[in-house]
Amino acid sequence: MARILECVPNFSEGRDKEKVEQIVEEVRKVKGVTLLDYSSDETHNRSVVTFVGEPEAVIEAAFNAAKKASEVIDMTTHQGGHPRMGAMDVCPLIPIKEVTMEEAIELSKKLGKRIGDELGISVYLYEKSASKPERENLAVVRKGQYEGMEEKLKSEGWEPDFGPIELNKKSGVSAVGARMPLVAFNVNLSTDNVEIAKAIAKKIRAKGGGFAYCKAMGLLLEDKNLAQVSMNLVDYTHTSVYHAFEFIKREALRYGVNVVNSEVIGLVPMDALLDAAKWYLQIDEFDHSQVLETRLHD
Amino acid sequence: MARILECVPNFSEGRDKEKVEQIVEEVRKVKGVTLLDYSSDETHNRSVVTFVGEPEAVIEAAFNAAKKASEVIDMTTHQGGHPRMGAMDVCPLIPIKEVTMEEAIELSKKLGKRIGDELGISVYLYEKSASKPERENLAVVRKGQYEGMEEKLKSEGWEPDFGPIELNKKSGVSAVGARMPLVAFNVNLSTDNVEIAKAIAKKIRAKGGGFAYCKAMGLLLEDKNLAQVSMNLVDYTHTSVYHAFEFIKREALRYGVNVVNSEVIGLVPMDALLDAAKWYLQIDEFDHSQVLETRLHD
Repeated sequence: MARILECVPNFSEGRDKEKVEQIVEEVRKVKGVTLLDYSSDETHNRSVVTFVGEPEAVIEAAFNAAKKASEVIDMTTHQGGHPRMGAMDVCPLIPIKEVTMEEAIELSKKLGKRIGDELGISVYLYEKSASKPERENLAVVRKGQYEGMEEKLKSEGWEPDFGPIELNKKSGVSAVGARMPLVAFNVNLSTDNVEIAKAIAKKIRAKGGGFAYCKAMGLLLEDKNLAQVSMNLVDYTHTSVYHAFEFIKREALRYGVNVVNSEVIGLVPMDALLDAAKWYLQIDEFDHSQVLETRLHD
Repeated sequence: MARILECVPNFSEGRDKEKVEQIVEEVRKVKGVTLLDYSSDETHNRSVVTFVGEPEAVIEAAFNAAKKASEVIDMTTHQGGHPRMGAMDVCPLIPIKEVTMEEAIELSKKLGKRIGDELGISVYLYEKSASKPERENLAVVRKGQYEGMEEKLKSEGWEPDFGPIELNKKSGVSAVGARMPLVAFNVNLSTDNVEIAKAIAKKIRAKGGGFAYCKAMGLLLEDKNLAQVSMNLVDYTHTSVYHAFEFIKREALRYGVNVVNSEVIGLVPMDALLDAAKWYLQIDEFDHSQVLETRLHD
């Protein structure tokens, strides 16, 4: 498998397992797609599905899942703790291997157009696919939630990128867009003083003048009694795991504190860790095709 | 592809491209096997073929290649600069993924037995598969080369592990065995004083009291005018790339010298570099199945 696109759609159903299974089955049955994971949250009444594969196959699976969601989910009766605006609430496309961001953006537009044209659902393009800067941030796009969409779609500057200007009452609105893979990386400090973690988090994140593609917060791990700097690196090709780590290590020393250990949560692209190995080992020239495992499926 | 075995047989033919192609074709046509690379050296009159795949398929491909080599190569007329004792001179089997060393040893015995029984070629098991300690080292096994094998096979303690005690004159003798993947790792120093690289090499290698699974030598890179510590890490799971690197960095400082950069030559198992990333980033708990790419083909 040479080219890999990842897709992580969120659906507004987390209680009726049978409906969730029907949606997931649409992903499973597309050739060239591998279902990596899916999980449902009853409180949020929401499910997240993760799959990867050849780009065209991934788009096909995403569309089929959106179609099934539009059949089995009724937004007029949906309740749950998580902000939402549609049956397939949001569908990010993430380039993993031999897919450029530009290609992922094109694919997101193709998917959005199909959802608009064939399912009659209004679609906003978001993140890297956004047609205007104010549509980049999902929270802004989704503001007003399902209940506010009828009015939002008709308000100035918020016409949908695809699909009808009239709200599809049963299915709501979907956000579709391309984004970088996210690396969830936490660093634990040799202190129970959460204020130190919070101070470091403020300094490392973009908002505080730190790294441009880093979101961070400080918290206390109650079970271990350790303060933690918890991060989302939203573009590891620009803000790397090792730069974030070294910044925290140095900043912690300022308070007389050391790094105890760190953790990567969930899936991580191989390159995010290979880049760290190359940097620490000072390997100047290295082609990732030298990694034996990458040669097996070309 | 869940389980991966690598095989890197060396054949005593490096001048007649057509014969080499015939041997390589035997590897190519086995289902479940991926040919990664092959190259021929005219001076050595020798070719190296690298392939990987599902263990049973790899053994099948190795046997078929050995059979073809026994047909197209005639050792009675072979000349070349590299030590050799047979048509398929040596065939290492290397566990890469979800294959234990014990399994690789069993597979090497199965392969050796087939070569002995079906092709009538004498086989010595070497490296981890060796039936006696003195057969572990290939150089010792091959001592006397093709020309000395008729006598060696009949001498005390050197009866073959498989196949006839009488030399197969056309095909010679083959060494078959399991070994760990080898990582070729070089570190360049901020000096043109090759004596410093030689002194560090002596200290880092097993022979000098250094790391148990490290072979090393010091040399001068003429084009860059930099001294280099050139290493073979013969078991990166016990002597890691990062420990070797940190040892050299520290030892170089003793001479007032820094590390300029380093290089990995050829293919490297993903884990050798992931282990480095984990160590430097102090990631305590990490399951390699968190690497997105590893999830695609299970």
